[in-house]
Amino acid sequence: MLRIEFVTDLGARVSVEVESADKLLEVQRQYGRLGWTSGEVPQGGYLFPLDNEQDFDWSLIGARKFTNNEGEDMVMHRGHAYRRRELEAVDSRKLKLPAAIKYSRGAKNTDPEHVREKADGEFEYVTLAIFRGGKRQERFAQPAGRSQPAQGSRPAAPAGNGPRPQAAPAGRPAPVAARPAPVAAAVADEEPPF
Amino acid sequence: MLRIEFVTDLGARVSVEVESADKLLEVQRQYGRLGWTSGEVPQGGYLFPLDNEQDFDWSLIGARKFTNNEGEDMVMHRGHAYRRRELEAVDSRKLKLPAAIKYSRGAKNTDPEHVREKADGEFEYVTLAIFRGGKRQERFAQPAGRSQPAQGSRPAAPAGNGPRPQAAPAGRPAPVAARPAPVAAAVADEEPPF
Amino acid sequence: MLRIEFVTDLGARVSVEVESADKLLEVQRQYGRLGWTSGEVPQGGYLFPLDNEQDFDWSLIGARKFTNNEGEDMVMHRGHAYRRRELEAVDSRKLKLPAAIKYSRGAKNTDPEHVREKADGEFEYVTLAIFRGGKRQERFAQPAGRSQPAQGSRPAAPAGNGPRPQAAPAGRPAPVAARPAPVAAAVADEEPPF
Amino acid sequence: MLRIEFVTDLGARVSVEVESADKLLEVQRQYGRLGWTSGEVPQGGYLFPLDNEQDFDWSLIGARKFTNNEGEDMVMHRGHAYRRRELEAVDSRKLKLPAAIKYSRGAKNTDPEHVREKADGEFEYVTLAIFRGGKRQERFAQPAGRSQPAQGSRPAAPAGNGPRPQAAPAGRPAPVAARPAPVAAAVADEEPPF
Amino acid sequence: MLRIEFVTDLGARVSVEVESADKLLEVQRQYGRLGWTSGEVPQGGYLFPLDNEQDFDWSLIGARKFTNNEGEDMVMHRGHAYRRRELEAVDSRKLKLPAAIKYSRGAKNTDPEHVREKADGEFEYVTLAIFRGGKRQERFAQPAGRSQPAQGSRPAAPAGNGPRPQAAPAGRPAPVAARPAPVAAAVADEEPPF
Repeated sequence: MLRIEFVTDLGARVSVEVESADKLLEVQRQYGRLGWTSGEVPQGGYLFPLDNEQDFDWSLIGARKFTNNEGEDMVMHRGHAYRRRELEAVDSRKLKLPAAIKYSRGAKNTDPEHVREKADGEFEYVTLAIFRGGKRQERFAQPAGRSQPAQGSRPAAPAGNGPRPQAAPAGRPAPVAARPAPVAAAVADEEPPF
Repeated sequence: MLRIEFVTDLGARVSVEVESADKLLEVQRQYGRLGWTSGEVPQGGYLFPLDNEQDFDWSLIGARKFTNNEGEDMVMHRGHAYRRRELEAVDSRKLKLPAAIKYSRGAKNTDPEHVREKADGEFEYVTLAIFRGGKRQERFAQPAGRSQPAQGSRPAAPAGNGPRPQAAPAGRPAPVAARPAPVAAAVADEEPPF
Repeated sequence: MLRIEFVTDLGARVSVEVESADKLLEVQRQYGRLGWTSGEVPQGGYLFPLDNEQDFDWSLIGARKFTNNEGEDMVMHRGHAYRRRELEAVDSRKLKLPAAIKYSRGAKNTDPEHVREKADGEFEYVTLAIFRGGKRQERFAQPAGRSQPAQGSRPAAPAGNGPRPQAAPAGRPAPVAARPAPVAAAVADEEPPF
Repeated sequence: MLRIEFVTDLGARVSVEVESADKLLEVQRQYGRLGWTSGEVPQGGYLFPLDNEQDFDWSLIGARKFTNNEGEDMVMHRGHAYRRRELEAVDSRKLKLPAAIKYSRGAKNTDPEHVREKADGEFEYVTLAIFRGGKRQERFAQPAGRSQPAQGSRPAAPAGNGPRPQAAPAGRPAPVAARPAPVAAAVADEEPPF
Repeated sequence: MLRIEFVTDLGARVSVEVESADKLLEVQRQYGRLGWTSGEVPQGGYLFPLDNEQDFDWSLIGARKFTNNEGEDMVMHRGHAYRRRELEAVDSRKLKLPAAIKYSRGAKNTDPEHVREKADGEFEYVTLAIFRGGKRQERFAQPAGRSQPAQGSRPAAPAGNGPRPQAAPAGRPAPVAARPAPVAAAVADEEPPF
């Protein structure tokens, strides 16, 4: 018998029994659709193969995709909105890197130091996940026949509110960057658990 | 079988069994009325739909409403008193925000850095909850027919002691802002659990 | 079935089953008399009604009263000795406060930042508990018929008898302030659990 | 009955029952091959006898060996790649040290302060494990008959091949040093659990 | 039924059932002999009566005595070597202290701030345990008839490697002071659990 520890969408600490190791991802999907998460985001963000990005099942980490009203692909995770960014391959003499897709947001002054990553100038950001290299793993894909609930959703978030350098530079109050969160978070809450 | 971890009103770490996921909020209400909480307040505070503010069941997060003797709406949570503030909608070129209601208090020098949010000048505050946008969710409302116990209460807190900029600027000792807490906290303790 | 997590007098992490919520305080008393504690001391210290100070059952928080060689009322908690101080009521134009009794000690350089409170000058102190206002709660009182070991305590310490700067100023090594601890801690260990 | 707490390869917190203490390492091997880890890396890295390095079972700590494109022996642990380095014995008047083999990586700005170790100049590194002295313990060796996936490893890396300052100096963004991780991590994920 | 949480000698988080409170120390001894520990070392170190130092059962806290090849009494705890020091009684006008025996080591730059204690000049140290005053408690003594396994052991640690001011001043890399650890730790690992 296994037991998995979650933080619910309301921030409560709740553990759930799991019959066996092979049932684990199923349980994570089930509660992840409620916005429940288990453990911390790894330093530098979750790492997944690039070929899993297309149909990645975000419920595995308690997150959900949505499209803001600028038409940008976003992911909501624990009340924070992360923007999808495509990173081209780098092939210089001192650095060779395959192409990647990254989900990140601007850092907020309430973010602990160890999750902040420096970018150009003063700007700091926080990464939720990076899809790069590797080989596709079916276990990370959305179950066949289930369309991502939030896929078509359009939360009534005001325009130009995504976390971006000028919107929430490190050292500025959180409210600004935080504002889209309540809306989308509330929408996520409306989704049925199963 | 689920298990939820609480911190009791005396600060003890106690976990309680929960039959099933659909019984979870009921258990949180039951122990929340005793001032028990589970997990941490999310960064930037709890996020709820604006339409839930009117009859929000504060026991869900181990908090309770009360009115200080200046007639202000306050919420007591883990011995800290938070004041209700109405934020008007913002509709400028660089920022568009729906109206919101926020419960916050002045920061104390015993508050960890990551919960402090900067305001004008030196002042720092801590947010318990923000109600904004989204769509009302019945699961957050007070159970019909149950009047909020503390609704009519009037703790004998001395005048002009609520956490406010001049009362507890960051970097000043906690005692001042903390003073109303023991009183109201004690009152809360007198409430029957069920 | 509930489960409470303790830190034993030897610092071990041990959880104990509790039949029901109404048996919880009884279990906390039972193990608290061994010096076992559960959870952390709340920011700014535990808050209790003033009318509970007289016969407060310190075993509820794993502490014990004792009288030092100078005849002062002290409380031992996790190897730290806290001194009893009476705070008179304040009734000025900018601040109105009821009388209170506080148990505090000088900060040690091994104390984490968030528990230190600033006092006059460089001195920092740590508060274990404050008794102020509120309404007496019987559940906090010593069970009738059980005399507190250290109850035969001397009259209240004279005013302004807080932890002395020269005894353990912040930034000085812990040993000085810590020295009374081992002795009393050992004494506490000799007490029978039941 | 024992219970061991793991962090899965997806960062989830999952505990597993273990029949008895003598079955513990077996369970750690079983889940460690999935990239699950239990507890934190000890300050300064894991310490093992030098004679265990040759056939050390990295699954015991949720890690795996692999050989990078430059033919260097590396170990992947929680998405971080550590390079094998051979440290020659030191026998000076002020310091006598036996030979050792160390697995370390350059520090990233997302690494907490307490895991960083200073090297020459500005460079900081993080150590996963040190093999030095002691006496070989069979319990740390790969089970007979099971070949380590990445075992087909190249000869020892040339001397002075530690993590390069220019590769990931402290204070620079993580992405650079992090880049090899996703790939290898994904490969690790493909391995069957049993 | 009680449950105690350990960190094993490999750093894994494992909890073990304990029939009743009076069996607890027995279980701590049993696993402590494997180098398993429960909870953190108290701020300023463990506190025990002076009369227990002679035959203290170090397995109670997952530690073991050994004698380095300079003939000094040392204690190994979680891979760190602590040196035995006798502190004479102090009887000045401003300070009166009974004699004590202290086990401490030089601080390493990987030690968190709150465990470091300042000494003369730049030097910082970390205390594992202090034996002072109090009254002997039999429960802390080695079980009759059982000789301390490591008592006569002589780990092959190179000369002059104990943690000492000049060996590991605060702010200097850990390796030097850390070096004796692997050896002795490995030796400890060879001891049978029961």
